[in-house]
Amino acid sequence: MLFSDLKLNEDEPIYIQIKNYIDAMINKGLIPNNSKLPSTRELSQFLNVSRNSIISAYEELKSEGIIYSVSGKGTFVNHKNIISKNSWNINFDLLENEYSKIANKMDIVKSEIPWRSDLISFKSISPDGELFDIDEVKKSFLNRISLEGHKILNYGYAKGYKPLIDYLLSYMNIKGVDTSNKDILITNGFTEGLDIILSSFTEKGDYIICENPTHNTAIKIFKSLGLNIIGIDINKNGIDFNKFKEDLYKIKLDKSIKIKFAYITPSYHNPTGIVMSPEDRYKFYNIMKENNIAIIEDGFNEELLYTSSHIFPIASLDNLNNGVIYIGSFSKILFPGIRIGWILCDKDVIKKLESVKRCKSIHVSFLDQAILYDYLSNGAFDKYVKKIRKFYGDKFNFAYECVQRYIPNEYILGEGGLHIFIKLKDLDSRIVLERCYEKGVIFMPGDIFYIGENGRNTLRLGISRVSMENMEKGIKIIGEVVKDLMKYKK
Amino acid sequence: MLFSDLKLNEDEPIYIQIKNYIDAMINKGLIPNNSKLPSTRELSQFLNVSRNSIISAYEELKSEGIIYSVSGKGTFVNHKNIISKNSWNINFDLLENEYSKIANKMDIVKSEIPWRSDLISFKSISPDGELFDIDEVKKSFLNRISLEGHKILNYGYAKGYKPLIDYLLSYMNIKGVDTSNKDILITNGFTEGLDIILSSFTEKGDYIICENPTHNTAIKIFKSLGLNIIGIDINKNGIDFNKFKEDLYKIKLDKSIKIKFAYITPSYHNPTGIVMSPEDRYKFYNIMKENNIAIIEDGFNEELLYTSSHIFPIASLDNLNNGVIYIGSFSKILFPGIRIGWILCDKDVIKKLESVKRCKSIHVSFLDQAILYDYLSNGAFDKYVKKIRKFYGDKFNFAYECVQRYIPNEYILGEGGLHIFIKLKDLDSRIVLERCYEKGVIFMPGDIFYIGENGRNTLRLGISRVSMENMEKGIKIIGEVVKDLMKYKK
Repeated sequence: MLFSDLKLNEDEPIYIQIKNYIDAMINKGLIPNNSKLPSTRELSQFLNVSRNSIISAYEELKSEGIIYSVSGKGTFVNHKNIISKNSWNINFDLLENEYSKIANKMDIVKSEIPWRSDLISFKSISPDGELFDIDEVKKSFLNRISLEGHKILNYGYAKGYKPLIDYLLSYMNIKGVDTSNKDILITNGFTEGLDIILSSFTEKGDYIICENPTHNTAIKIFKSLGLNIIGIDINKNGIDFNKFKEDLYKIKLDKSIKIKFAYITPSYHNPTGIVMSPEDRYKFYNIMKENNIAIIEDGFNEELLYTSSHIFPIASLDNLNNGVIYIGSFSKILFPGIRIGWILCDKDVIKKLESVKRCKSIHVSFLDQAILYDYLSNGAFDKYVKKIRKFYGDKFNFAYECVQRYIPNEYILGEGGLHIFIKLKDLDSRIVLERCYEKGVIFMPGDIFYIGENGRNTLRLGISRVSMENMEKGIKIIGEVVKDLMKYKK
Repeated sequence: MLFSDLKLNEDEPIYIQIKNYIDAMINKGLIPNNSKLPSTRELSQFLNVSRNSIISAYEELKSEGIIYSVSGKGTFVNHKNIISKNSWNINFDLLENEYSKIANKMDIVKSEIPWRSDLISFKSISPDGELFDIDEVKKSFLNRISLEGHKILNYGYAKGYKPLIDYLLSYMNIKGVDTSNKDILITNGFTEGLDIILSSFTEKGDYIICENPTHNTAIKIFKSLGLNIIGIDINKNGIDFNKFKEDLYKIKLDKSIKIKFAYITPSYHNPTGIVMSPEDRYKFYNIMKENNIAIIEDGFNEELLYTSSHIFPIASLDNLNNGVIYIGSFSKILFPGIRIGWILCDKDVIKKLESVKRCKSIHVSFLDQAILYDYLSNGAFDKYVKKIRKFYGDKFNFAYECVQRYIPNEYILGEGGLHIFIKLKDLDSRIVLERCYEKGVIFMPGDIFYIGENGRNTLRLGISRVSMENMEKGIKIIGEVVKDLMKYKK
């Protein structure tokens, strides 16, 4: 207890002893900043000394700026003047490692144009929150919390919530994946899934194959983990398989190059929007199989495939094998705020990844997993998917029309989904963006999706959160800017 | 569309052409496993050929085991016999890196004694789920989901949900931390917090100081990241500061040794249960400051301090400096299932960690953060903490008494909280555990908390989830086993 170990002696004035005691306590940090000291009356009683001694001690401390009074409230500690005498400042810039530096440098959120409510923004491909059926989420929550609240609020298993895992296994089964030798790990969305796989199976300096362009977050994760990237160029027809085979053959002549994985997004590829045909999926799978390079398949937006019954994930080609690691997520259509994704792959691989997940963050929120499970299994999801396919389908078609009508281009890519990819005729999309921003319109410059310095003349329009009215208005403005800049070029 | 690209020629029997077409489609994986083929009638109409041709084609495929019929249901695809012809098996053991290997090897869950409902288990220090006030959680959920459901179910910010961050800043302020130059990052519990800090600021081969013994998950994270560990021995009086200073002085003579952090758990230290006195906190802080080694303070179970108004976190000694990174979590007392923790430290450091968090898993569930915020700020948390302090306090006192009464020991440590630490008189606790398991009682052998090969004669009893009745029964059994083994020794 404060003051209880204060032994007053007879050699020094009482008020000095009290002052020094308080000073020392504050200096040691034993009295926190802004905490209230006893009143002079209380302290004089407690220490059994005259009230004047206390008043004098407090006055001394006040004059040094170590304590302060607020009239009617009392006397308080002020750390500022103490600590600054004796400050400690670690240079964390020097401690920071390469991983953090790259994660910071490539964090596009930090260099983004600040959001303003009056902007028409084509940047996002997040789902439109207004479409979420909140009542169904409520029902699912109340159902799970009543049935097993004490359980789902307590620690769970690293692998995930069993009913959700079982649901997703049969969900993947319907997509043509034989799950008899497979298992699932629940992750904090796609991003953690990719991070867990790569941080378990790659070393700095390893190589990874991916489409060029590709999902910018994936590029960031590859680079931050020190991986070398081999890009497969995508043009408006998708992958040129003959060229890809040749390139791969040449690369593999250098025996020091260790290609660990090929990362691919076959459905509504980000940013181009291309949906890989079943035949191309088959070709890609076989090239990887021949070369013994494991595939990481990003199930991104697969749920939006209008004709999903005819296009199966690459994972479905790998039945009874272990060559494909599939990462699924509903985040682009359903509740990204709760951050739930999954890795589906060989059982033995899941066992390894499960321990890595436990080492990184124990497990994903069991409350969220239980809510999602309830929502998926009670039929609400099917209704929701039907609704949003129609909603986003209409939106996409309208946006595509507008782009065709208003924006001069070399080509437009996209077959549905939440974004459209545009290649301009020899114009720098960063300059277009600058001009558009002045007119209140923003979008994603395409270069962020490219490995190296390419894609300066491309851009991605995210359409999911733009109203129909703003859609036409915004695309018209982009078109005008493009036309204007093209005139200037000639 | 399946069959629409089948061009029949006149050179081959129709049924062979149809059989080969289906065979090829299945082989390419374009028809998923167990999917239903058209009936012979449908297909004969669609292809405009005789039904007999279809029947013959199907019969051929059946005889090869590629399709099968279920009477009354139809004909289905069977992938098994195809893929096995042509299997692909990647050796992931060869791809696995050191990080994953260590995370797997040190995953104690995998080597644990399987749980049985008839066991009295002192292993866990998870909170007792029966204490959770589910009704308050419901209220908080319904409140937030009604107010901002569309928002909290959609993408949020890497740093966290603003109201929760603000709440926690003032919460830490009350604990004596001047937050004027500090900020908070919300993480998936303590584990992700520690992982994010270390994976941003350390390199393989760096050194980290920690108490020995310490939290086993922390040891696992250190080792998996390739850090060298310098243990500060703890005995029943806590840290021997003179010895620690000397050791540190000697270690620092080797200039190649880079000590990046000191990790410390000052309250109800895991596993010893020691609560560091304010004076010791001050000493520890100053030694680290003199040596310019940043402190990672684990706020573990601080909320259970009965006398919390007199003991402040080490972070409160660092006001206006940047030497302490504090990791907080309510997981040991409140809803560990939702996995929410926080890092409090210098603003500029949080900016770096924020990008790393975004790179690893985007952000923590906004739904969970919003529920927790509501629950904390509406007063439910205060009521809950009062209730559980009393509940766990009574439990601890009873358990401590039982241990004193029944288990012969060198010493017992623990001052409250959710566990008791026992040092046996020269007995291997793994052997004690084996015998106890036969009698239906299990606990945590102490060695898992030690760096290196120490602690074989210690054990930790987690008391949070054991009923009062089983407490005495279980501790009595442990005591009997210990006495028995001691007799045998003599």
